[in-house]
Amino acid sequence: MRSRAPIKVTLVGSGNWGSAISIIVGKNVQKYNDVFDQEVRMWVYEEIVNGMKLTEAINTQHENIKYLPGKKLPPNVVAIPDLPTACKDSDILIFVIPHQFVENVCIQLKGHIKADALVVSLIKGFMIQKAKGGIRLVTEEIRELLNVDTAVLMGANLAPEVANENFCEATIGCKDQKDRWSILQKLFDTDNFKIALTEDANTVELCGGLKNIVACAAGFADGLGYGSNTKSAIIRLGLMEITIFVELFYHGSNIRTFFESCGVADLIATCSAGRNRKICEAFVKTGKSIKELEREMLNGQSAQGPLTAEEVYLMLEKHNMVSRFPLFTAVHQICQGQISPNQLVSRLRESQSSH
Amino acid sequence: MRSRAPIKVTLVGSGNWGSAISIIVGKNVQKYNDVFDQEVRMWVYEEIVNGMKLTEAINTQHENIKYLPGKKLPPNVVAIPDLPTACKDSDILIFVIPHQFVENVCIQLKGHIKADALVVSLIKGFMIQKAKGGIRLVTEEIRELLNVDTAVLMGANLAPEVANENFCEATIGCKDQKDRWSILQKLFDTDNFKIALTEDANTVELCGGLKNIVACAAGFADGLGYGSNTKSAIIRLGLMEITIFVELFYHGSNIRTFFESCGVADLIATCSAGRNRKICEAFVKTGKSIKELEREMLNGQSAQGPLTAEEVYLMLEKHNMVSRFPLFTAVHQICQGQISPNQLVSRLRESQSSH
Repeated sequence: MRSRAPIKVTLVGSGNWGSAISIIVGKNVQKYNDVFDQEVRMWVYEEIVNGMKLTEAINTQHENIKYLPGKKLPPNVVAIPDLPTACKDSDILIFVIPHQFVENVCIQLKGHIKADALVVSLIKGFMIQKAKGGIRLVTEEIRELLNVDTAVLMGANLAPEVANENFCEATIGCKDQKDRWSILQKLFDTDNFKIALTEDANTVELCGGLKNIVACAAGFADGLGYGSNTKSAIIRLGLMEITIFVELFYHGSNIRTFFESCGVADLIATCSAGRNRKICEAFVKTGKSIKELEREMLNGQSAQGPLTAEEVYLMLEKHNMVSRFPLFTAVHQICQGQISPNQLVSRLRESQSSH
Repeated sequence: MRSRAPIKVTLVGSGNWGSAISIIVGKNVQKYNDVFDQEVRMWVYEEIVNGMKLTEAINTQHENIKYLPGKKLPPNVVAIPDLPTACKDSDILIFVIPHQFVENVCIQLKGHIKADALVVSLIKGFMIQKAKGGIRLVTEEIRELLNVDTAVLMGANLAPEVANENFCEATIGCKDQKDRWSILQKLFDTDNFKIALTEDANTVELCGGLKNIVACAAGFADGLGYGSNTKSAIIRLGLMEITIFVELFYHGSNIRTFFESCGVADLIATCSAGRNRKICEAFVKTGKSIKELEREMLNGQSAQGPLTAEEVYLMLEKHNMVSRFPLFTAVHQICQGQISPNQLVSRLRESQSSH
C-alpha cells in the first residue's frame, strides 16, 4: 500500500556509514520517484573542514570530504545542520550515529517529528543501563524517548566496501509492520546491497552488538597464533553464546535469523576484518592495554567489543548466569587484565563440560 | 552400558588424518582401559619409505614417517599391512581413507568383520553414482556393502593442527544407536578435541562434503580481490544452499546441526584455509585449468570441491532444481570453464530475486 503523499526520508547522521548508505538511499528514492519525496535530507553535525563548512561541501561538491572522501553522493542528498529542521515532517528517519549520541538526539527531536514516523536504526551496539546494570537495545531507547515505531538494518557491511558498491547483503528487522516492508525494500535494496526482511527485529539488533565480543575472542586467537581449527571453534562457540543470550533475555527469536547476513555473515566478516579483532590481536602481541591501543589505532575512539563485553558481563552476573557464557566472560576478563589471553581456551573447555 | 569383553578398535587408513586421529584414539583407549582393548590396530597400505617398510617404521619408531613425520604415535597403535587381519574381531572400525578406496576396502572386508561392528567414517566427500547420476553418502555405500551400522565424525579438523593438539571441536553423527554414544565419546573426546554427538548423521556427513563447493566460491572471491562483505555474503549464501540441499534430498535434518563444528566451524575454516579455496584462488589469478593446478599444487591429487560440484550439478539437473542452487551451479560452471569467475556474483543476484 502506497501512501498518497510522497514519503519523506531523513538520514540522521553523516559519518562514514551514514554517507555510504546515503548513496544507496539517494539513488533509490530517484528510482522510485512515485513513492518517495525526491529530496533526502541528511542531518550533518556542522564542522569546518579545510576552511569550509561540511554541509556546504556536501551541498556544493556532493562529497563528504571528511568521512567519505573521494565518493560522490547523489545530488538529491541535502545536508542540513539543524536537527529538527532536517527531520521535520519526515516519514522515515534513518539513525546512523554513534550510540552514545542517541539519547541526546532523541531529546532534541522530541515533539518535532511526525507521530507515525518510522525510525530505522543502523546503529550497532547497545545502550548502557547504568542504574540497572546490563544492556538495552538502541531501538528500545528510541521507542521510549520518541514513542515511534522502529526497525533495524544490520549485516556484513563495512562502509568503504558498501560505498564502492561491492556486492553484499543486509538484514532488516521490522516487527508488526508488514505494511512497511515493501517501502523498506524499495528504500534500501539494490543489486549490490541485497536486503532480506524479517519480523525478528530483536535478534537482528542483538547479533549486530554481540558479535563484537566474539570478534575480540577471534583477535586473541590470532594474537596467540592459533590455527584455523581453533579460531573457527572459537567463532562457533561465540555464535552459540549469542544464540543462548538472545533466547534467554529476548525470548521468541527465530533460529533462522542467525543464518541471515546480520548473523553468520556479519560474524565472519567481523572476525576476519573488523577493528575489534585487530585491537585484540594487538592486545596479545604488544601487551599494551585496550585503552592505549584505542589511542594508537582508533584515534581514541572506543572499540565496541570490550565495552559490550563489560556490560554483558554485569548483566550475566546480576542474573547469575556467568557460567553459561564462558566466552563472553573470558573476553571481558581478558580485556580487564584479570586473566591472561592464553586462558581463553581453558575457559572454553569448561563450558563444554557444563552443557 | 559397557560390553563385558574389551572393545576392539581398528583404524582403516594411515594417511595424514588417520595418523593424527590415531594419537587421540591410542591415548583414549589407554585412559579407558576398563572399556577398550589396549591394542589399536591400524591398517597400513604397505610401502617402502627410505628403504624401510612403513609398517615397520610405525611399529618400531612409532612414527608415520611418510604421512605425519615428526609426530610420535602412541606405542599401542600397531600397524598391520593385511586389511582383513587388521579388522578381524574388531567392534569399531574407523574408516579414514580417500573415498575412492571405499568400495575396494569394503569388498575385501566382506565376510571378515563382526556382524555387529560399527564403522565410524571420517571420510569427507561423496561416492559417485555413475549409473544414476548424483551423489551418494559414503556411509550409505558402506552400509550396503558391509551390512553394518555406521556413524560419522566431521568438523573443523585440519590434520596437522589436530596432531599438534591445538584446541578444536568435532561432531559425531550416530543415528538410532544411543547406547553407543558414551563409547564414541570415550574413544574420541579429549581436552583438545571436543566431541558433540547428534542423531542427525546425514546432515553431519553432507556438511562435510558440500562445504568444499562453498570453499571454491570463497577461493574465486579471493582470486577476484573481493572484500570481506562480499566474501562473507558468498559463504552465507553457500551455507543456505547446503541447508536447502540437505532438506530437499535428505529430509528430517535438524537446523541446529548446522551450528555444530561440522557446520559453520568447518565451513569457516575451509573457506579461510582449505586447499579447495587455494586452488580456486589460483584458478582466477593464473588462468590455468583446475587439472593443471592440481598437478602443480596438490601433487596431482584431486581437489574435492570441483568434483563434488560436478556430481551435485548432475543431480540438480536430473531433479530439475538447478535454479534453486545458483552458487553450487556457478561453481561447477566456473570450474568447467563454461562461465567466467566474475559471473559468480551476478548468478547470486539472480538467486535472491527467485526466492
